[in-house]
Amino acid sequence: MPASDRKGASAPFSLAIDAMGGDHAPDAILDGLELAAERHPHARFLLVGDEVRLGALLAMRPRAAKACSLRHAPDVISGDLKPTAALRIRGSSMRVAIDAVAGGEAAGIVSAGNTGALMALAKIVVKTLPEIDRPALAAIGPSARGDVVMLDLGANVQCDARNLVEFAVMGDAFARAVLGLTNPTIGLLNVGSEELKGDERVRQAAETIRDSHIGTNFRGFVEGHDIAAGTVDVIVTDGFTGNVALKTGEGALKLMRDLLRQVFTSSVPARMGYLLARPALDRLREWMDPRRYNGAVLIGLNGVVVKSHGGTDALGFAHAVDVAMDMVTHRFNENIREGLARLSAATPRETPAPR
Amino acid sequence: MPASDRKGASAPFSLAIDAMGGDHAPDAILDGLELAAERHPHARFLLVGDEVRLGALLAMRPRAAKACSLRHAPDVISGDLKPTAALRIRGSSMRVAIDAVAGGEAAGIVSAGNTGALMALAKIVVKTLPEIDRPALAAIGPSARGDVVMLDLGANVQCDARNLVEFAVMGDAFARAVLGLTNPTIGLLNVGSEELKGDERVRQAAETIRDSHIGTNFRGFVEGHDIAAGTVDVIVTDGFTGNVALKTGEGALKLMRDLLRQVFTSSVPARMGYLLARPALDRLREWMDPRRYNGAVLIGLNGVVVKSHGGTDALGFAHAVDVAMDMVTHRFNENIREGLARLSAATPRETPAPR
Repeated sequence: MPASDRKGASAPFSLAIDAMGGDHAPDAILDGLELAAERHPHARFLLVGDEVRLGALLAMRPRAAKACSLRHAPDVISGDLKPTAALRIRGSSMRVAIDAVAGGEAAGIVSAGNTGALMALAKIVVKTLPEIDRPALAAIGPSARGDVVMLDLGANVQCDARNLVEFAVMGDAFARAVLGLTNPTIGLLNVGSEELKGDERVRQAAETIRDSHIGTNFRGFVEGHDIAAGTVDVIVTDGFTGNVALKTGEGALKLMRDLLRQVFTSSVPARMGYLLARPALDRLREWMDPRRYNGAVLIGLNGVVVKSHGGTDALGFAHAVDVAMDMVTHRFNENIREGLARLSAATPRETPAPR
Repeated sequence: MPASDRKGASAPFSLAIDAMGGDHAPDAILDGLELAAERHPHARFLLVGDEVRLGALLAMRPRAAKACSLRHAPDVISGDLKPTAALRIRGSSMRVAIDAVAGGEAAGIVSAGNTGALMALAKIVVKTLPEIDRPALAAIGPSARGDVVMLDLGANVQCDARNLVEFAVMGDAFARAVLGLTNPTIGLLNVGSEELKGDERVRQAAETIRDSHIGTNFRGFVEGHDIAAGTVDVIVTDGFTGNVALKTGEGALKLMRDLLRQVFTSSVPARMGYLLARPALDRLREWMDPRRYNGAVLIGLNGVVVKSHGGTDALGFAHAVDVAMDMVTHRFNENIREGLARLSAATPRETPAPR
């Protein structure tokens, strides 16, 4: 398994694609690749799944056909399979795609399949970067001041101060690679912005980040309302809080959308009002379109691992491929390693975590 | 200090009112009491603050004047004062009002002043119920299926399983007293709804709640999106997660409101559309009006302690008084005590927490 340090640049395939994962696979995946192949003309995809079915679908999608090589995988991991069970199915499309990343054939993988299985397989097969205790789940969302990166979104329900510091370094590298920011600002999620707020864990993490090379862009503690306000570019938190915050924000926005739908269908004048305001409302809807933000990334691994929402369509899947391509192209993992090396030089780790 | 068990029913004053706390005190407080006195004709308020100023304001508010007795307090706790410093000012309006609760003169207190100071003073002076490890901050918010109670919202950034169980019992009693529900459903906030999700702490808490007298109404784990969806009546979580979730949800709704304002002022047709849909939009705005949800409650204390938002107006303050009156009238603390007694009978505590 030649896990070369520069695999991203030299792997024969940009990405391995799990063609069989997700509610609308493989059709939506192939349609997404047709879009992605146009946006990334130099990308090469290793398409993994049922060879016969995929061959037929590729025949109708000329751009995807040109960008893809097919690899057969007889099995599919279903959405409700437990991660421990998924680990035992060696012939699944997800596993074969992940094996290609671990073997250095592809720089990353995109899958719309079972999240728990993808996280478990990625950790065990692709493996965590040697400098990292625990990988984190990161994603991008809309805010009043532009896109915001948040992590961890649920890979680690319990985190210590060191984990939070590593998330800050990884979030910084992620915002540079995927949002294209040269100097992303970083905030640590807490119950108040004053220095004495929160528990020992966040206070200790804040101190270490402040002393690190990203300290100049560290804005200290931020609060829940800062996520939508876009006060900082990167929000760092533990996986429990991050998962709850992400879903709470999504839930609040969904409630507003549902209530607005009721408002605009509640009377004839309200319907007319909707038609008049429609162009502006459509721009708002487009701006908040969840497909534009599709693609959660498991970062801190020895390869790029992107999870597309299972229910997404071609446009959403193509966006997840965009995120993965940005990470591969901008040498994301090399940036993390450099960041962590600088962190270790500045703040020697006191208690090495178990591997 | 005759801390009678039935103080709520027998105290000479229903509530002590900190007349000097908050951005618009004392005027907004007095205007709020004028409304509250009409809604609660039998209530008696102990109005605490600058005697001369309050006397002059009461002279212009006949209903409040009839319901209130004045008590002088020479000092005011400013909004930015540290709790430790606030504890030393014995002549503040907040402290004198809290002393009245601790002394059995009033069944509860409402203050729009410094939150940290109110929490610290209430814990130290009014004291925690003997059966409770830690008081929690609870509030009510809107959801797609009616009002929802959430706790803890930040009183305890670190909680163990036993704390979460006590929050469930207190949240149950709170929903009965303030929302008037006879059988509130309860959910424990987690990163997924499956039984194996989350950390040991939430899994242990879920098991204990399931075995308790409120187990029949326990719906197990809920996720962030369940808050706005109103899946359950009571959401139980630790103070760190609850504080972040509350502010994240508020932030998302504020973002939507701001964006809608931009939409409806973006063009002449959009403005006309707004005017046509306005009655329905106004109903939506009224339904979500933060003043309707004003009044966070510190529960688990030997008296009713309600914190009004500092920036609220008369309508908001009157609502905070409504919440406090509901708790006093419906023997809220007695319900908690009965609930905890039944809990202890069913699940003997293994490790008594330090007092």
